Amino acid sequence: MTVEEMKEYRLQYNKVMVEADSFFAEFGKLDDKVYADGAISKKHKELMGLAISLATRCNECILYHLEGCLNAKANFSEIVEAIKIGVIAGGSITYPNARFAFDKLQELMA
Amino acid sequence: MTVEEMKEYRLQYNKVMVEADSFFAEFGKLDDKVYADGAISKKHKELMGLAISLATRCNECILYHLEGCLNAKANFSEIVEAIKIGVIAGGSITYPNARFAFDKLQELMA
Amino acid sequence: MTVEEMKEYRLQYNKVMVEADSFFAEFGKLDDKVYADGAISKKHKELMGLAISLATRCNECILYHLEGCLNAKANFSEIVEAIKIGVIAGGSITYPNARFAFDKLQELMA
Amino acid sequence: MTVEEMKEYRLQYNKVMVEADSFFAEFGKLDDKVYADGAISKKHKELMGLAISLATRCNECILYHLEGCLNAKANFSEIVEAIKIGVIAGGSITYPNARFAFDKLQELMA
Amino acid sequence: MTVEEMKEYRLQYNKVMVEADSFFAEFGKLDDKVYADGAISKKHKELMGLAISLATRCNECILYHLEGCLNAKANFSEIVEAIKIGVIAGGSITYPNARFAFDKLQELMA
Amino acid sequence: MTVEEMKEYRLQYNKVMVEADSFFAEFGKLDDKVYADGAISKKHKELMGLAISLATRCNECILYHLEGCLNAKANFSEIVEAIKIGVIAGGSITYPNARFAFDKLQELMA
Repeated sequence: MTVEEMKEYRLQYNKVMVEADSFFAEFGKLDDKVYADGAISKKHKELMGLAISLATRCNECILYHLEGCLNAKANFSEIVEAIKIGVIAGGSITYPNARFAFDKLQELMA
Repeated sequence: MTVEEMKEYRLQYNKVMVEADSFFAEFGKLDDKVYADGAISKKHKELMGLAISLATRCNECILYHLEGCLNAKANFSEIVEAIKIGVIAGGSITYPNARFAFDKLQELMA
Repeated sequence: MTVEEMKEYRLQYNKVMVEADSFFAEFGKLDDKVYADGAISKKHKELMGLAISLATRCNECILYHLEGCLNAKANFSEIVEAIKIGVIAGGSITYPNARFAFDKLQELMA
Repeated sequence: MTVEEMKEYRLQYNKVMVEADSFFAEFGKLDDKVYADGAISKKHKELMGLAISLATRCNECILYHLEGCLNAKANFSEIVEAIKIGVIAGGSITYPNARFAFDKLQELMA
Repeated sequence: MTVEEMKEYRLQYNKVMVEADSFFAEFGKLDDKVYADGAISKKHKELMGLAISLATRCNECILYHLEGCLNAKANFSEIVEAIKIGVIAGGSITYPNARFAFDKLQELMA
Repeated sequence: MTVEEMKEYRLQYNKVMVEADSFFAEFGKLDDKVYADGAISKKHKELMGLAISLATRCNECILYHLEGCLNAKANFSEIVEAIKIGVIAGGSITYPNARFAFDKLQELMA
């Protein structure tokens, strides 16, 4: 799937979930608050989210935080360092997700 | 175990591992390089390591990166924000590790 | 993949596995026994299987237990509550699987 | 640690966390709501929480939901069936947690 | 995706990663050394890698180690035994990955 | 805990579980069959079990398979190579378990 298709799918089903049960609106709001600018800047939080997404091997989360990193003006070197932190933490089983991250980063920066 | 006992155990067996096989020296050196000051500062990398440790539920890793955060002059608010990012990513099954993080943070800041 | 394609693939390769080695028949039989009506009803066991599938982020398992829930006459509200229990346990990294669950639930209930 | 020591530690550090940051009160409230009586009964939700705790290998979570199961009047057979569902889902690496569950269940029912 | 497409994608993005940062060359070299013939033969190491890939539910890793097993002259029975060890360790949530393993094994042995 | 205490605890609660429900006898028997001498030797299966235990971060499993490796006459070099395969697969979050493995290996070989 392309970045655009993955984003569209995410938006569509986040909407379905929020309409199905208020829990998902509350959880989403809590997540947004955790990632808001604070003692740690939005940019560094998005880089943290990216590193966690690598270590926990969640491709959709990788795309979500790559978008967040770029929106918060993280540069290529910072993004690569976040990926490396995720890979060294989670080992060679994170390699498929690292490949996905570089694939989608190329698409997002094209 | 106290922080001091955990640190001593870590040092003792890291030494045993390095003496047993050069792999562990090489892996350790690679890990150190990934966490060195770079495009992302040492402080923010340690905060990232802490967030990953929460999300992946690794108590020894939490202690290791709490030490790294404090050595790199991260303040209490930054550390708490990193813990929150790990908890929202990993859910309620990370709560025991969040309690451990606050427990050891109190001990380290005492 | 559609629900039908996923089911067909599952059946095809479960058969391949059972033919390759008796272990898979034995493991499958043990799994079936665990999920049979007992002190806990079949319906509630399927809801438990669904919640576990969310928390452990296994999409094929989600589809399998969604089918089990519907066959055991679980209603929409019960299924949504099981998904919520999986999500709060496993955190925001389960969101892609929650979206998948709602996607396939729509398809199964259509 | 005994059940009483584990409960005391949990309460003490949940309090520390709630005092450190309002996030933990909000996350805790959301978790409580998800586990409240609803389309699925409180008892069955606690059994689900127990099964998830086995499959995700979280001992403190196991104790927490064993208490919840007993408070909601789940009987021994129901609790054992929930443990079995967690073990078949998560495999032999959940055995240490299954032993812990039976250990603490004995202590709680003594 | 076919085996060939998965291999091509792997090679393409491993190259992108190595060009982006020397870390990936170093990590890859370390991984290669760990899997080289030694006290344990290359064949048995690849079978171990396959079992780990099942237990940790990593499909790309499964394909990579299936190739390694076949290149090192592991036979069908050895490969099936490695898959079984991964499945009993990781439980029924590894079944989708076991199906994938048999699917790709058929394709590789065709 | 010492090796002896961990073994005693394991035996005691495996017995409790088998007495509580026949599922645990059946699962245990299936696990024993998977690890029996076959196309892959008992020794190499125990080394695989050790590598999986590292990658999945299960200390009790590490001790169990260290015993199995030594009983099957695996030597120190083979055991260290199995640990390395687990660590490179699972990354730096497996280091606490690698330390535990070397700690218990020293105790078992003393």
